[in-house]
Amino acid sequence: MSLASPAREGRQTASIEAIVALTRADMEEVNRLILAMAGSNVELIPQIADHLISSGGKRLRPMLTIASALACGYAGEKGHVKLAASVEFMHTATLLHDDVVDESDLRRGKKTARMIWGNQASVLVGDFLLGQAFKMMVEVGSLTALDILSRASAVIAEGEVWQLAAAKKLTTTEADYLAVIEAKTAALFSAATEVGPVLAASGDEIRAAMRAYGLNLGRAFQLVDDVLDYRGTAKALGKNVGDDFREGKITLPVIIAHERGTPAERDFWRRALEENGSDDAALAEACRLLEKHGALEATVARARGYGEAAYRAASVLPRSEARDSLLDVVEFCIDRIN
Amino acid sequence: MSLASPAREGRQTASIEAIVALTRADMEEVNRLILAMAGSNVELIPQIADHLISSGGKRLRPMLTIASALACGYAGEKGHVKLAASVEFMHTATLLHDDVVDESDLRRGKKTARMIWGNQASVLVGDFLLGQAFKMMVEVGSLTALDILSRASAVIAEGEVWQLAAAKKLTTTEADYLAVIEAKTAALFSAATEVGPVLAASGDEIRAAMRAYGLNLGRAFQLVDDVLDYRGTAKALGKNVGDDFREGKITLPVIIAHERGTPAERDFWRRALEENGSDDAALAEACRLLEKHGALEATVARARGYGEAAYRAASVLPRSEARDSLLDVVEFCIDRIN
Repeated sequence: MSLASPAREGRQTASIEAIVALTRADMEEVNRLILAMAGSNVELIPQIADHLISSGGKRLRPMLTIASALACGYAGEKGHVKLAASVEFMHTATLLHDDVVDESDLRRGKKTARMIWGNQASVLVGDFLLGQAFKMMVEVGSLTALDILSRASAVIAEGEVWQLAAAKKLTTTEADYLAVIEAKTAALFSAATEVGPVLAASGDEIRAAMRAYGLNLGRAFQLVDDVLDYRGTAKALGKNVGDDFREGKITLPVIIAHERGTPAERDFWRRALEENGSDDAALAEACRLLEKHGALEATVARARGYGEAAYRAASVLPRSEARDSLLDVVEFCIDRIN
Repeated sequence: MSLASPAREGRQTASIEAIVALTRADMEEVNRLILAMAGSNVELIPQIADHLISSGGKRLRPMLTIASALACGYAGEKGHVKLAASVEFMHTATLLHDDVVDESDLRRGKKTARMIWGNQASVLVGDFLLGQAFKMMVEVGSLTALDILSRASAVIAEGEVWQLAAAKKLTTTEADYLAVIEAKTAALFSAATEVGPVLAASGDEIRAAMRAYGLNLGRAFQLVDDVLDYRGTAKALGKNVGDDFREGKITLPVIIAHERGTPAERDFWRRALEENGSDDAALAEACRLLEKHGALEATVARARGYGEAAYRAASVLPRSEARDSLLDVVEFCIDRIN
């Protein structure tokens, strides 16, 4: 980005290499557990689960759970692995249901499960994975971790319903939108990192710090995604550029450009997003207006602000490789824009 | 039915009046909790939840949780209420998703949520209710109860996927089918009644008995439903007679009639169920063949067998009003056929 941070001195580009290296051994356990828990005699379940699980996602969320547990000094063997796998299953279940709700054709550059196996199977396999996630959480035996993750589960769904109801409404304010992404994206990041200190029996201060870290990281992550939807490449994005626009999604760049727009421009946004007038010519016009009003830059600035908040939050942890890897993740998320 | 049981002597018709009376005060608390937990600032959520929750379901499952806790001597104030509400939310979430998967238009005689608010909202509100269910379970603080209910959640979804894959396949055997209904229906009944003794800290014997009670009751309940789909009235059924047939569902009566059928009859079943040839004339022919082969009677006999197993299981409990109300429920479920 780069964040103004002493920790960055002398280092070149932000990457997730540090967290990947740090969590490698534990993530192998997580991956084994994921495959085992996605197994079923009902063949359709491992087929669909494997399709998503092996589809090249970075597994950022479970890595965050592992790294946050290690950064807090967790010394147990399995708890962080099970919670990390639970977090990934919650995420995978959400993706399956999201693709049904959004009628998406592509996810990470591959056909979505619903395009291959249908909406019905996607709904039910998502339900199955969510059930398996809860089973793993229960095995860990921490009621506090269960509380954090079950709350996140309800909040994510609530945010999705909100977004469904607000979709295609240009009356959505910036504050509304930030509340939605807090629920639908940041809540899971936050839960993923908060369970680390819970497992490690860290104090309230560290727990609050790790929650704030995940929450702000998640907010930044989503805003960067919103920008990439207009400025990325299909390859980097793993979905088509302009998907949000074509689906009539009101994201922060659009809210800003609409707010700053002339009456004629607002009319354009209304036709494009509320009345499905979002063809390729409209997408080109949308990009022009976002540029004209500096809407993508304003969104990036907002993301950067949340990134800095995440960075500050994690900085209260004692210095360790695990902590530094968490700091690197913040910069990596923001740097995706470049 | 009636079951050959000494407890029935001198009593006339089986009813759920006893369990309704027994659980009345607690069920008022359950209903309050359900309304509170279905609340959200996102208006669509209480709208959809109320639609299902107030749609005249008997709330049999949460009553079973309350009655099983009381039958085991549970003396706490809130645990059984919270678990009962969780069970009802799990059930409601399943109904919302089922109606999407089955493309159903009617549920308990009313338009389904998906017909009013769409499939997307039904999927997401189901997810929200499931999240809220887990939150309530966590509040109760029993890891054993959490284990039982989270397992049920995964098993139910697994059964639904199985049914989806097996739908319209006349190669489904009786054993296959019984495994499916054990997963998709009986697992929740079983979990609903097993958490009662867990809350009451009853011993393993009582816990196993209550699990067996719920499991067998659930099996009987589903088989009776399968019979009613061909022999009920839309009013008693709350859905259209022949819905299963029109949806191409292979239920036990069909499996039996198909197995006992002539080659020409098997051809009829194949055309009707595997190739969507299930119009009203075909439904009439289906009913004739079910009659000819005694398929409904055979299914009823099977249901009766499970009912007797449920009855025997609950009979190991010490005698109490709560226990007797559980016994009455078994007879009520079977008597729905008449």
